[in-house]
Amino acid sequence: MRVRPSQAALAGGVALNLLLLLFYWRWGAPPPPSCRGPRAVPGVTVVLFAAESSEVADTLGTSRSFAALPVPVLLVAEVAPYPPVPLPAGVSLLRLRPALEGSPIRPELHVRTRHVAFVPDGARAVPGLLERMRDVLESGGNDGDGNGEQLRVVAAPVGTAPPRCRELRVDARGWTVSYGPAVPLGGSGTSCGALEGPSVLLLRTRDLFSLPLPLAQPAPASLFIQAAARRWRLRVLPAPFPAALRPPLSPHDAWKAADLAQNRHRRLMAELGVKREALADGADRWYGCTKTTPRCFGTVHARTPQYLLAGRWTPPCCLRALRETARHVVAVLEGSGVRYWLEGGTLLGAVRLGDIIPWDYDVDLGIYREDVGKCRWLAAAAAGTPVEDPEGFYWEKAPEGEFYRVHFSRANRLHVDLWPFYARGGTMTKDTWLGHPQDVEFPERFLRPREPLRFGGFTAMGPNSPRSFLELKFGAGAVENPEYPNPAVRRMREDGGPLGGGMGGEGVI
Amino acid sequence: MRVRPSQAALAGGVALNLLLLLFYWRWGAPPPPSCRGPRAVPGVTVVLFAAESSEVADTLGTSRSFAALPVPVLLVAEVAPYPPVPLPAGVSLLRLRPALEGSPIRPELHVRTRHVAFVPDGARAVPGLLERMRDVLESGGNDGDGNGEQLRVVAAPVGTAPPRCRELRVDARGWTVSYGPAVPLGGSGTSCGALEGPSVLLLRTRDLFSLPLPLAQPAPASLFIQAAARRWRLRVLPAPFPAALRPPLSPHDAWKAADLAQNRHRRLMAELGVKREALADGADRWYGCTKTTPRCFGTVHARTPQYLLAGRWTPPCCLRALRETARHVVAVLEGSGVRYWLEGGTLLGAVRLGDIIPWDYDVDLGIYREDVGKCRWLAAAAAGTPVEDPEGFYWEKAPEGEFYRVHFSRANRLHVDLWPFYARGGTMTKDTWLGHPQDVEFPERFLRPREPLRFGGFTAMGPNSPRSFLELKFGAGAVENPEYPNPAVRRMREDGGPLGGGMGGEGVI
Repeated sequence: MRVRPSQAALAGGVALNLLLLLFYWRWGAPPPPSCRGPRAVPGVTVVLFAAESSEVADTLGTSRSFAALPVPVLLVAEVAPYPPVPLPAGVSLLRLRPALEGSPIRPELHVRTRHVAFVPDGARAVPGLLERMRDVLESGGNDGDGNGEQLRVVAAPVGTAPPRCRELRVDARGWTVSYGPAVPLGGSGTSCGALEGPSVLLLRTRDLFSLPLPLAQPAPASLFIQAAARRWRLRVLPAPFPAALRPPLSPHDAWKAADLAQNRHRRLMAELGVKREALADGADRWYGCTKTTPRCFGTVHARTPQYLLAGRWTPPCCLRALRETARHVVAVLEGSGVRYWLEGGTLLGAVRLGDIIPWDYDVDLGIYREDVGKCRWLAAAAAGTPVEDPEGFYWEKAPEGEFYRVHFSRANRLHVDLWPFYARGGTMTKDTWLGHPQDVEFPERFLRPREPLRFGGFTAMGPNSPRSFLELKFGAGAVENPEYPNPAVRRMREDGGPLGGGMGGEGVI
Repeated sequence: MRVRPSQAALAGGVALNLLLLLFYWRWGAPPPPSCRGPRAVPGVTVVLFAAESSEVADTLGTSRSFAALPVPVLLVAEVAPYPPVPLPAGVSLLRLRPALEGSPIRPELHVRTRHVAFVPDGARAVPGLLERMRDVLESGGNDGDGNGEQLRVVAAPVGTAPPRCRELRVDARGWTVSYGPAVPLGGSGTSCGALEGPSVLLLRTRDLFSLPLPLAQPAPASLFIQAAARRWRLRVLPAPFPAALRPPLSPHDAWKAADLAQNRHRRLMAELGVKREALADGADRWYGCTKTTPRCFGTVHARTPQYLLAGRWTPPCCLRALRETARHVVAVLEGSGVRYWLEGGTLLGAVRLGDIIPWDYDVDLGIYREDVGKCRWLAAAAAGTPVEDPEGFYWEKAPEGEFYRVHFSRANRLHVDLWPFYARGGTMTKDTWLGHPQDVEFPERFLRPREPLRFGGFTAMGPNSPRSFLELKFGAGAVENPEYPNPAVRRMREDGGPLGGGMGGEGVI
């Protein structure tokens, strides 16, 4: 059969069209909507957190000022503000507390713009300034540190007081947030971790909702800490937003506002898992771990506490309470003439770093069994009567065997274990063995004489030749090669080693 | 120009193809993925909640049994179980507590199947039974009540004990959940609101994640209450899942488990906003509102409490505490010879329904001013010395004017207001007026004599001709036509009237 040119052209045209059709059908569909609602809207949504004490708040004035720019304003509140605030046009309310009759709370569906700005109560809008912040963010900053891809937050102060910038380091593994000294703000904008004083904070909407706690309050501290844990950079623009003129608070209102702010900050630290804030002046703020709270970790299984499995080390407030208990026990033993020495992992920590090993969960001391009667609290415990001493420490015989335990308090069972050894033919031995590799007999010569060692800020007695003692118990290289207590369950290597650390982790040794 | 047939055919073919192309391009694209991840997978995901006390849990056995069906198993836990549980193949872990270093928690992204089944700890899988439950759900049930479209949950018992079914009514407006008497289970499956004893609960994934608290615990109570608030029907299949044979709990473990369960239930009631569980035997379980907690609503603005703006009425525990305070004050006044009478909205409630109006927030009594000195607590309050009486009620002069206030306790400021009136030329008048429409003088003849009225479970004195008294104060028809205290702020009509009610609301008058 002969094919005419027109027939060939027809067939070719149809084939080409079918190919095009197939191509469009398979690959040419318009992109499906994103799974968090359209983020295609250029612009900035202003997020304003309703104050808990509405009497002293400027919710209406602030939201009205930004809504008039105009930009969408989202008022975020636990429950609807009371007394009710008539919301200006362009302002919508997001209630965070679920209601039995209501729908699931999905904050990410309430922001449709690509950028979002946290605005503090009392700020006033400046036309063009939010756009300028966004442009700085999207241009990656131009402060020439060659690390522009990390810039994720742009801040601008509110009011005339110059903002104070601090370095902020997050050690998630150590449950600690550390603030550095104030950094002077350069003219063209400065990079820092946390900003003191009210400020507007602008970031990408997708960055905000990639955080585990995007709308936790107080919003600035929450954002600074979560950003620092991700090594996001924050840049401060010198241009300020004005602050509304407001009459000074009455002393009662000021007290109430400060009290609410402190409670909110405390709740935030609990939500973020921060147990210590190390301030620039050397002071610490502690969260959790008191004599009246239960120990902040439960029964330890397989010598691997729950926090270690979650990639964290001993909460710093627990280490502090352990040190305090150890110092107290050592003072009591010395005062009553009981011969004791640092044992096991505790001695290892003393030799390695002069402190408790940062992932250890108790303190071990050896004592001469024949000295037990010299200390009234130990004698009471030995007689089967647990006793709380005048400083609130709780002495008892361990239910697991022939040894003693001194707890931080009756409620908080952080403890020092006291292991009674006795000499038999020049060898120190005892009656209860827990089956750990390091739980072995040793020659008495290590205790003749004992030797003072620095430990957790005080001096305690240890065996002489502590390195040989440790190598006898733990094997060669134990001092130099840190490892978790039960490598079969969790190895240090999984956490990036002693100096590496996970996300935001810092070398602690 | 002459067009040859082959040319025409070519042009027509191209045009047709272009049309097809356009059609596919615009309308023929495959449907975009749903915004909650693909739900296209037929099948059932088993959701198992990790027990808080892992020592007594059967997490491993239960998850292994269902994973072997095989179906995907999602183990839901606040934090990873400890001691760690090696997860069998097919079992994944969803941690609900956000971590500083982690990602946002989005439970809905962890279920990819169209159906989901809550399985209690200790249940064992039966091949085909989950599918049967799903088929019953999707066929809308066949129990012939003509209301099949409401069937949203299918249950099957676990173990050999026959499950006990109860009616469950949710009165969100009244903060109350009421349980009916046990309903016998028919052979072909029965419809009920709550099921006692362990059971497997199957529902559509999209229904589960349309709830405000999809994964709150205890999961069965949470699901029953949220389902009842939406008038979802639950149907029970008679076919049981077997329960694992487990040694009985030690008394200590049983106590610990019961204690944990009670605390969890209490937390759930707080999350759901339930303040009263009315049990079938007439007993009540109360949540919140004690003498040592603060009043569960704040300062009332514009005579419209915060709860009324949220579409709810006075928490029932507050009504109860108000009744208790009123009964106490009336007894004290009668004992000391102070002439009093039910006033304002309190009298309105007594005449209308023999009780406090269900959205009222205080109790008002009138007293003769010259009788104040007869009651020692009133006399103390009048002398400027607030006083807590032996029963823990707190008497004080109101800071707002010349009247007295008796609080439920020093901490819980639910109160009875006492308004001192005096006669002037046959008219009862007083010195402080709050400007409410009903706050007016009245002829003394209404008090000569006073008349006993039933009020909140006891008898109190009111004016004679109480209807005329009320019409004088509130206007004609006040008794018959309930309205909120300040209709300018919130009208009863917005809540669907006294008998309508919002979602799950019940007629309370």
